[in-house]
Parts: sequence; structure tokens; C-alpha cells
Amino acid sequence: MNTRVAAFAHKVTREPWGLDGPTKVDVRRLKDLADCFAAHGADGCQQGDPEKEIYKVISPSEQEQSDLTYAITVINPGKVGTEYHMTRGHFHKKADAGEMYFGLSGFGVILMQDRLGSITSAEISEGAVVYIPPGLAHRTVNTCQGELAFLAVYSPQAGHDYESIVRRGFSKRVVERDGAVVLEERTD
Amino acid sequence: MNTRVAAFAHKVTREPWGLDGPTKVDVRRLKDLADCFAAHGADGCQQGDPEKEIYKVISPSEQEQSDLTYAITVINPGKVGTEYHMTRGHFHKKADAGEMYFGLSGFGVILMQDRLGSITSAEISEGAVVYIPPGLAHRTVNTCQGELAFLAVYSPQAGHDYESIVRRGFSKRVVERDGAVVLEERTD
Repeated sequence: MNTRVAAFAHKVTREPWGLDGPTKVDVRRLKDLADCFAAHGADGCQQGDPEKEIYKVISPSEQEQSDLTYAITVINPGKVGTEYHMTRGHFHKKADAGEMYFGLSGFGVILMQDRLGSITSAEISEGAVVYIPPGLAHRTVNTCQGELAFLAVYSPQAGHDYESIVRRGFSKRVVERDGAVVLEERTD
Repeated sequence: MNTRVAAFAHKVTREPWGLDGPTKVDVRRLKDLADCFAAHGADGCQQGDPEKEIYKVISPSEQEQSDLTYAITVINPGKVGTEYHMTRGHFHKKADAGEMYFGLSGFGVILMQDRLGSITSAEISEGAVVYIPPGLAHRTVNTCQGELAFLAVYSPQAGHDYESIVRRGFSKRVVERDGAVVLEERTD
């Protein structure tokens, strides 16, 4: 067995979620997502503990010379007000950058919105494959009672543009109404 | 709902295996893989029906402008002689082209071999994620009793180099010995 060859065969591990080889973990807390959730108290402040962990992204800490990279996102179950936990969401900077999601655990909704504001959604669940085409901002929402975990595969050159979607915002919110998951037009 | 947006959310379908949107199917039969299997009769000819379907590859028939593409490979269960059904295997032409596999059904073995002949293997099974790093020829072998299906994600610019690995061949064969799956050094 050639160890150089073997060392490159990265795979996903569970409990806890991880990747073979050195990884880094980026945690996103409620305070990092203040502009994403609608829920605010009478004083205009965000409801909930600002330190509450909403999701984390696990990725290889060393990018080898490859045209593909990948990361696991794990979204904790829960809501902020009536709104389900979600990722920030972003466009890619590179115009032709697509992305592929593999559902690893749990289920939820992916919102995809183009630069004119047209929006669509796709279900993600364990074993499901969802392709995010170039040119669409994408946000993932955990609507289940446990963790929603998925692997994303994309080009290291894709780039992340968070600002464009912050300015306009996603035009739909994923909320609980009478115990059901509902995609609502945003009114705020 | 913007139909342009919706139309691009390709997903995998099962029974039968497919992708949302127009697809093409490439079938590989035993006659197409004559140099892959060791089993030959006393006359030096390949054993088995040359028209026997070994595997098929299902891919989008129209490549949109994207830096990612994808295909489902479905390997039928069975053996040729003692050797389990396998894909042809190839290097990528592009030096930095990686590939990601996501197991959809069944289980088996991925052989990965560099240009110096060093070889390693990884297990693939339903729900498993395997990354094929750049520079390694890769072949998938179905060692289970049913279909082995997986989704492969890669750059449309990756290119397929089948010739290099044909000249040297993979240095291991995946065979059945006394009911067990064994990786044997190739002796032929």
C-alpha cells in the first residue's frame, strides 16, 4: 500500500460528523445571522441567545491541487421565532460555478434564487442528490427534528458572494404555521 | 415559480435510475470490456455472452454552462469467471481533475492507481462518499448481489484517458475465492 495514495482517499465520517484527514470547523451562531431571521422583539432586537449555534461547516483544512473541493454542513434543529434554522446563503462569484449536494442525515428545504429575485425550492433529505445550477443563490433550511447534514461539492474557484443576497434577501421564509412547514412570501 | 429556475434543479430518480431532465444512457457490454476481465477459455476467447450488459452510465444529454457535471453509473451484479463485474476505469486528462462519488445503492470496491502503478482501494456503499483525487485511475467493482449504483460529480473539462490504464492495467483484480471477496495481485 502506497501511503501517499491512501492518504488522499477522503471520506465522510459520522458521530461526530467529519472528513478523513485534517479539517477545520466554522461555526455560525445566531449573532452571525442577525439579518437572516425575521424574529425581533418589541425593542427591535433579535430574539434568542446570540451565542446559539445554528450551523457549522466542516471542510478540509488543506486544499490540495484539485478542481473539486467539498464540505459538510450540519444545521442544528430548531427555530428562531417561527422560522426554521437556516444557512446564510450565497451566490458564487464565478459565473459558471455549480454545486452538488448529497443529503447525509435529516431533511429540509433548499431555496434557490436568481439575481432577478425569482425563487424555487428543492427538498433535501438523507440519500437525496440536489444540483444547484450556476447563477442561483442558495440557502438550506432544516425543517426536521434532528440535525440536517449534507455534503456540498464545488470548485475551489467558485467563490462566495454573500453581499448580493443580503441586499435583496431571499423572497421566501420557511416557517412553522399550526405545526406545518410553510414557505411564505417575505413581507418584511 | 420561474420555470427557468425550476427546470435546472436536477435530481436523481430511482426505479428506474435516472436524472430529472433529458438524459443519455451508455451501455457497456462484455464485448466492450474484453481486455478488463482475465477469464478466457481454452481457445483464448473471453468467457461469457459478449452481449451481456455489465454496466451503464446515465448522464444529462445537454451540458449546460457549468463547471460541474455528473452521471449515475449502475453496475449489474455478477461475475465473469471468478471476477466481479467492473467499470473500464480511466485516468482524467486534466491534471488537477478530481471526482466525487456518492453511493446510491448496493456496495463494492473502488480501485485507484497512480501512473507509477501504486494502487489503493476504497469501499463504496449506499450513502458513502468517496473522493477520487487527481492523478489516479479509478475503476469500480460490484461485489454485492444487487445493482451497485453511484453518482459521480466532476468537471466537464476533466476528460477521460482510457488508453494509459489499458497499457499497464490495474495491478489488482477483485475476485471471489471460497465465497469471499478478495483483492488479488494480478498475475497475468
